[in-house]
Amino acid sequence: MTELKKNNNFIILLSIFHIAFIILFAIFTKFPKKNGQENATENYLYFTDINAMIFIGFGFLMTFLRRYGFSAVGVNMLLACTTIEWSIIIRGLLSEHFVEHGYFTLDINSIIYGDISAAVILISMGAVLGKLSPVQYLIMAIFEVPAALVTEHVIVEILHVSDCGGSIVVHVFGAYFGLAIAKVLNRDGIQKSNHEGSIYHSDIFAMIGTLVLWIFWGSFNAALASGEEAKRRCLINTMLSLSAATIATFITSQFVNKHRKFDMVHMANSTLAGGVAIGTVANLVLDPFISLIIGTIAGCISVLGYEYITPALSKKAGIHDTCGVGNLHGIPGIIAGISSIVLAFVYTSEDYDIELFDIYPALKNGRTMSSQALYQLLGLGLSFFSSIITGAITAVILRLKIFDQVPDEDLFSDERYYHTPSDFDFTTRIIGHIDNVEITEKTI
Amino acid sequence: MTELKKNNNFIILLSIFHIAFIILFAIFTKFPKKNGQENATENYLYFTDINAMIFIGFGFLMTFLRRYGFSAVGVNMLLACTTIEWSIIIRGLLSEHFVEHGYFTLDINSIIYGDISAAVILISMGAVLGKLSPVQYLIMAIFEVPAALVTEHVIVEILHVSDCGGSIVVHVFGAYFGLAIAKVLNRDGIQKSNHEGSIYHSDIFAMIGTLVLWIFWGSFNAALASGEEAKRRCLINTMLSLSAATIATFITSQFVNKHRKFDMVHMANSTLAGGVAIGTVANLVLDPFISLIIGTIAGCISVLGYEYITPALSKKAGIHDTCGVGNLHGIPGIIAGISSIVLAFVYTSEDYDIELFDIYPALKNGRTMSSQALYQLLGLGLSFFSSIITGAITAVILRLKIFDQVPDEDLFSDERYYHTPSDFDFTTRIIGHIDNVEITEKTI
Amino acid sequence: MTELKKNNNFIILLSIFHIAFIILFAIFTKFPKKNGQENATENYLYFTDINAMIFIGFGFLMTFLRRYGFSAVGVNMLLACTTIEWSIIIRGLLSEHFVEHGYFTLDINSIIYGDISAAVILISMGAVLGKLSPVQYLIMAIFEVPAALVTEHVIVEILHVSDCGGSIVVHVFGAYFGLAIAKVLNRDGIQKSNHEGSIYHSDIFAMIGTLVLWIFWGSFNAALASGEEAKRRCLINTMLSLSAATIATFITSQFVNKHRKFDMVHMANSTLAGGVAIGTVANLVLDPFISLIIGTIAGCISVLGYEYITPALSKKAGIHDTCGVGNLHGIPGIIAGISSIVLAFVYTSEDYDIELFDIYPALKNGRTMSSQALYQLLGLGLSFFSSIITGAITAVILRLKIFDQVPDEDLFSDERYYHTPSDFDFTTRIIGHIDNVEITEKTI
Repeated sequence: MTELKKNNNFIILLSIFHIAFIILFAIFTKFPKKNGQENATENYLYFTDINAMIFIGFGFLMTFLRRYGFSAVGVNMLLACTTIEWSIIIRGLLSEHFVEHGYFTLDINSIIYGDISAAVILISMGAVLGKLSPVQYLIMAIFEVPAALVTEHVIVEILHVSDCGGSIVVHVFGAYFGLAIAKVLNRDGIQKSNHEGSIYHSDIFAMIGTLVLWIFWGSFNAALASGEEAKRRCLINTMLSLSAATIATFITSQFVNKHRKFDMVHMANSTLAGGVAIGTVANLVLDPFISLIIGTIAGCISVLGYEYITPALSKKAGIHDTCGVGNLHGIPGIIAGISSIVLAFVYTSEDYDIELFDIYPALKNGRTMSSQALYQLLGLGLSFFSSIITGAITAVILRLKIFDQVPDEDLFSDERYYHTPSDFDFTTRIIGHIDNVEITEKTI
Repeated sequence: MTELKKNNNFIILLSIFHIAFIILFAIFTKFPKKNGQENATENYLYFTDINAMIFIGFGFLMTFLRRYGFSAVGVNMLLACTTIEWSIIIRGLLSEHFVEHGYFTLDINSIIYGDISAAVILISMGAVLGKLSPVQYLIMAIFEVPAALVTEHVIVEILHVSDCGGSIVVHVFGAYFGLAIAKVLNRDGIQKSNHEGSIYHSDIFAMIGTLVLWIFWGSFNAALASGEEAKRRCLINTMLSLSAATIATFITSQFVNKHRKFDMVHMANSTLAGGVAIGTVANLVLDPFISLIIGTIAGCISVLGYEYITPALSKKAGIHDTCGVGNLHGIPGIIAGISSIVLAFVYTSEDYDIELFDIYPALKNGRTMSSQALYQLLGLGLSFFSSIITGAITAVILRLKIFDQVPDEDLFSDERYYHTPSDFDFTTRIIGHIDNVEITEKTI
Repeated sequence: MTELKKNNNFIILLSIFHIAFIILFAIFTKFPKKNGQENATENYLYFTDINAMIFIGFGFLMTFLRRYGFSAVGVNMLLACTTIEWSIIIRGLLSEHFVEHGYFTLDINSIIYGDISAAVILISMGAVLGKLSPVQYLIMAIFEVPAALVTEHVIVEILHVSDCGGSIVVHVFGAYFGLAIAKVLNRDGIQKSNHEGSIYHSDIFAMIGTLVLWIFWGSFNAALASGEEAKRRCLINTMLSLSAATIATFITSQFVNKHRKFDMVHMANSTLAGGVAIGTVANLVLDPFISLIIGTIAGCISVLGYEYITPALSKKAGIHDTCGVGNLHGIPGIIAGISSIVLAFVYTSEDYDIELFDIYPALKNGRTMSSQALYQLLGLGLSFFSSIITGAITAVILRLKIFDQVPDEDLFSDERYYHTPSDFDFTTRIIGHIDNVEITEKTI
């Protein structure tokens, strides 16, 4: 293990960013004098749920790596907090209020948006989990936040694409940004590392994350929906889609295994694909069974992705996806986008009745349902390509020698970056090789 | 380990059920056009709490088995999701709205009810934990849902029994349904298996489940209470009863142990008995100290149950209760039912003032408080006997050869049904037999 | 291991206390006939968050000790429940309603206050974690509750000190009460015990607690704030302060380590210092960037405390602080108090506009902002000295021979007080000494 001693890059960079954030907050942010526009208590109800998803959900989901649990939970916190501060600033600078008044105000929605931006970055983190040093994770977040927010601004504010639960602007963007980095940073050592993989208890820790994400996903999809009816549909459709995806995951997980055994990787991830796949259309679906179908498709395809696509991409295309974000966020996000295109043909503007302009604001200005479908396609494509391009550029920067690169022997391992207890090596490495122990006499 | 290879029962059955559910949803469910009857945000607040109880609470509580953690969390998800879909359909078909209109609508209450039905099935799962194959768990859920819902319909809708937190129709039914199966499926191998039991960290994982159940139990008991005052009482009475049960658990747990040591089995389970025992009467208790007394009794009896009744039932009556659901749900549920009978004599109809008809709707039609007490007894008895009879019938079906039975060597073990990491055997079996290790020289 | 056999102190004392609580509840508590003053649903939203903090947050945060996980979670539950009952009684007896009517009523705020009192006691528990027997923990709670509540009553009700999130009356009091006990009970065995410390998975368990505290801290600081605007500020300021503290923790944690490694002790604790440090002023800060600054200072100082102050206090002053509550609650609480003094000079009474008398009720009676600053100082000093004096007195009682004292070999270990599984010693002790294992031939 090479020593990091005297390498102060992380300390210096994070200090600079954090001080800059404080200065930008001092210049540009205020509390609103009176804010009658927001129901703080109701928004806060959604906020705590989403906050749990970001800090516990994402953090613990990534603890499945047996030697990388400290980093999973710790770096998750670091990137979430950095992103929350940084994204509040950028989103504020992009807001109409800033253009008009020269400052912007903070309310509960600001921190909800902060958490949602954190989701983008943490999804990307999943693709490169175990392969970046703390300073590289940090640089990634710093570059990704403006890339994601500008892309989102174009898609949602300018093109008026409907993306209620953010599957297009959060999940697709986060997944392919991360995979672009994974591709550019790929090297032999990553494919050959024997530190990857789980142990029994790390898989159980990961399920804490999975379940926190599962139970609160409705809040994520509904938080920003406008209108009471739309919010209720978001919550119910998400629950139905998640349930269907979970059932589909069990079916497919056993189906792809010749011994008819379930795989915890599928339990931990594909069960959530239903939440992503319904995201864009959670407010749009007017018939509950459609949510069941979308969830079912997402669960099946996600398991197939883990079983066949991830290993193939890794071996043949050099795209190593540690958490399989392509199968949990990428493809299900694309399913969400495609669903939004299909639904614009399934439902007519009459079906949405008085809710129509809340749901598709651009139809007020004469856009038709079928041209809305085209815009949905455009938004999906834009998010996909923008994430790959900006991800690849970020990756090139991450490869610069001045940033600490992870040596091969420290891939997927906490040891280089965290003080680890004395049992670390035994618990996370040796333990997997023991089949039999000769018991000495009882000593007590 | 016999191979399951080519046994497609689980895949085929779950696929058929799931497709049938989707078709039934397509035919019978709609979103309400306008739903002014429900405060979606308030109901959703209770829903997420209950959702956490079902998926994290029940799931992690059952991870105490050292070799069965994947199944505990995984099968818990599977049964919860299957039940949510299936119970929404059955409950809808039993509803007045369906009788009148030929379809039924979904709102937040629908998914709350779905979660509550899941609780029934997951309680039964606790009694047979480690002893059924996935396909058997599935069949159990499919049969239990209509049995539980028809019983509940008779008790609550027809007999107008008051059961606010569902201790009679959820806890008593779930516990004795599961125990009836345990009795019928009992065999020598179960009593002799050496895979049962916990390790240090599996006991700590289980406490995640316990605490999630503990902190949100008020929401479970209050979600369906009608009236602001009644809801507040439900929340406070549940909190008091849980606190009292926790204190009683500590006292009794030390008392029954000759070395004056606490037992984590009691901490993990009996502390929750207060939530069950107050369930039926959480809205009825008008004097806070009564909740303390009910919780105290429940905590004491539950610990005594774990210490004396469970082993006796297992050895002498052939009723092996893996999680001790008889002591956490069964007896405390009966205490709840009895409390509801007693309280009908303690309080007069004047005590409930303007709330009376909200709480006891049948009194509008001339029923007296003492005849209400009789109905409470009738409801309790009905739930008890209905659960045993339908449970026993279900168990006979589960014994059919066509359903995969768990071989003795795979009881209480994930190995046959889950892909397990390389440390599985060491972490969950060998580790318990090691008392001393000779340390070789440091190698690094 | 000396046997506890036949020592019934714990059973007798807890039974007496619990029965006394039930009698006091029977005499003095009622439900309100009609309570129009409280929005039960909104208060309950905050309550469940705080309840999660108390039972999961504090409980799991203390599982970091590798051999003391059962006690951490279990004793945490015991003290929380005992405190909730006991503090409801004392707070009721101190209330105006009791003075006027001879009884007091219970609403959701009562159980919120119960949980907040539990926080005081659980903070103190952190300072003496692993060093007291169950009966001693119990005695500590019984004495600390009235000490804390009378102190709080004087500070908040009589001196009208502003302490919205309770950093002065909860965190400072709890920390220094615990440290006073730690000082008085100090002995050689504590410093020399080799059972202290974590293993890899116990550190990860602890992060469950940390994250639950982190995500819900806003609810703790906002629950008792009066006014919609003030509540919103509390929530946002707390989030900003926590984020800043987390970032500062990462910077400082790497900075103090010559190998530039992060330390999980800092991740688990100092990231939360921002929530404490903003507590007293969460409703007072009108400029968001000030929260970032307060959080940053708290995070930095907390890490420095863990790195330098805790070991120095332990070795030189004989104050052994198991969880480092001085750095998580003590010093950050003092920072909160000082911030409240400074802010009384930063903002003028005009800045608070119509909110002024909600925030500083004493200003209605002619108190000026600068004399309010003096009162804030007085309140901080009073909490500090009252906690040390009452803590020291409590400690003298705890040393009485009649209460079971923990023998040296059982410090920081569950073994004496809990029934432990067969892997206990291997998992929590032997495992840390293994560097290499000779693998025998595969046996399966």
